[in-house]
Amino acid sequence: MATIIDVAQRAGVSIKTVSRVLNREPHVRDAVRQKVLEAVEALGYRPNQSARRMAGRKSFLVAYLYSNPSPAYTTAVQSGAARCCRELGYHLVVEPVLPEDEDLSPVIDRLVSTLAPDLLLVAPPISDDADFLALVERKGTPLVRIAGVVPGPGKIISVDDREAAYRMTRYLIGMGHRRIGVVRPPEDHLSARARFDGFVDAMEEAGLPVDPKCLAPGRFTFESGKSAAARLLARAERPTAIFATNDEMALGVLAQAHDMGLSLPQDLSVAGFDDIPATRTCWPLLTTIRQPLEELGRLAIIEGIGGTDAPRPVLDYRLVERDSVARIG
Amino acid sequence: MATIIDVAQRAGVSIKTVSRVLNREPHVRDAVRQKVLEAVEALGYRPNQSARRMAGRKSFLVAYLYSNPSPAYTTAVQSGAARCCRELGYHLVVEPVLPEDEDLSPVIDRLVSTLAPDLLLVAPPISDDADFLALVERKGTPLVRIAGVVPGPGKIISVDDREAAYRMTRYLIGMGHRRIGVVRPPEDHLSARARFDGFVDAMEEAGLPVDPKCLAPGRFTFESGKSAAARLLARAERPTAIFATNDEMALGVLAQAHDMGLSLPQDLSVAGFDDIPATRTCWPLLTTIRQPLEELGRLAIIEGIGGTDAPRPVLDYRLVERDSVARIG
Repeated sequence: MATIIDVAQRAGVSIKTVSRVLNREPHVRDAVRQKVLEAVEALGYRPNQSARRMAGRKSFLVAYLYSNPSPAYTTAVQSGAARCCRELGYHLVVEPVLPEDEDLSPVIDRLVSTLAPDLLLVAPPISDDADFLALVERKGTPLVRIAGVVPGPGKIISVDDREAAYRMTRYLIGMGHRRIGVVRPPEDHLSARARFDGFVDAMEEAGLPVDPKCLAPGRFTFESGKSAAARLLARAERPTAIFATNDEMALGVLAQAHDMGLSLPQDLSVAGFDDIPATRTCWPLLTTIRQPLEELGRLAIIEGIGGTDAPRPVLDYRLVERDSVARIG
Repeated sequence: MATIIDVAQRAGVSIKTVSRVLNREPHVRDAVRQKVLEAVEALGYRPNQSARRMAGRKSFLVAYLYSNPSPAYTTAVQSGAARCCRELGYHLVVEPVLPEDEDLSPVIDRLVSTLAPDLLLVAPPISDDADFLALVERKGTPLVRIAGVVPGPGKIISVDDREAAYRMTRYLIGMGHRRIGVVRPPEDHLSARARFDGFVDAMEEAGLPVDPKCLAPGRFTFESGKSAAARLLARAERPTAIFATNDEMALGVLAQAHDMGLSLPQDLSVAGFDDIPATRTCWPLLTTIRQPLEELGRLAIIEGIGGTDAPRPVLDYRLVERDSVARIG
């Protein structure tokens, strides 16, 4: 089992410096902090938690609050975060919440008073929940927000939703599509709203009109995607492609097209966003944007526990070409 | 905020008794324990954890170890468990593990030594992992195993897989199917193996032969379901229905049928098992067995934390009729 001495030797720093990094004390240069954390990870070093816990300095617990209706999103972020916690000698406590009908305040109060987590981690839409952010600001607990948009406490880890949607739209245009329908994201999902902006960017760049009749609202659910598709496909001049701003809605678009007896993808191309597992078990397999969800969880922990004050990281996405988009024209 | 006095009054017992139930001390009658736990839940009573934690008696932490490849299963069990923990004043720590290439021993050692969880909760296939069970037996940490089959330490919470599969097969027979293909579960997934036994029960009861050429092995993945279907559907006399012993494989069967240009469900009926979310976003919507996954997680906590020595509970499943099974003949 690696000791703090091994970590110090590998990182080429003093034991005192390793200790300061692990205790998140100030006045450590970013490059040094990085070297120490890399050595910790490489050696699988685990601080002696029992002793340190007794000393009352840290709980070595990170609390993950989530209310995301997509279990695939939640689990992937959680797995990345939990594994990274383990590498750093921490543990991840989970708190599922339903912000729409549940007051977060007692949940946070209890968490902070009984567990004293060293870090709170949240996923959208909690990342932009004004009440939650005000509460955490009062408590002063360190916070990392995945895909947060509004200003507030805590660090933000995100992918560039706007650029990813721009790239997907350019891809559809490149495949010959001109009349592209969009199933829009819910209004309170701020990071996802940027996806629509990215769509508009690409259409304008290509000199194509954004036709309001090609837009339909969605609520990030399968059913809302299906209804939106029914509406978009009822038009005389129906779109040749539909870009749904998340995968659940894209799957609803596929189902509606199947119901109407369309041949996919010849009669209708469909694209999604997120790359949830169901995109790999539907038919045709869905072309979508892959968010590096495990990596988001991992980086959130690294930033929150051993983090620096460097600019917030923006992670790479990837356009995953599968079978749901056809070349036309 | 409710106090221990309120709980005692509501349950009609002494404060001492409430305390004994909450500390899981022996010699409390099941009926009394039940009354106390109901009062705790009804009043939302939360023991003063900080004080008790200081006293070193309990950690008020439950550790959930999982390696299930299906995020939907994992998250649903976890949500039920985490909510129930909250009601009882506990918190849920998650530990994703990969038993096939990861030694569980250091993970458990670290968990027990640094967090001292009051309970370990595991889902299949860890529930039947011999090394894991031996390890926990040595540690002596209380354990609840979801869908465990082999004898060993800990309580088991499960649904009756065999009966549920029997009922699904009877349903297919009732819809006129005689030549029914089966995509079998992996050998190491003991609880799931009972699903095949249930299929055989129903076929024998109906006087129908179990044709080995109608059986194909699966690995619980979409791809293995697709390959199995390719094999089953290549026969001259192909099955009119395929029962896949989990949903991921059933979705693979649907995809293979789409690829072959079959009309669903007229040309082929498909049934699954589990009711994962993707069964509600595929086409046609999948007929399957719904396991009460959140309830499994909730009951696991209740049994593990405040539990009795009553016989292990077996939970209800439900056959969910959707659009993937047609009546024939």
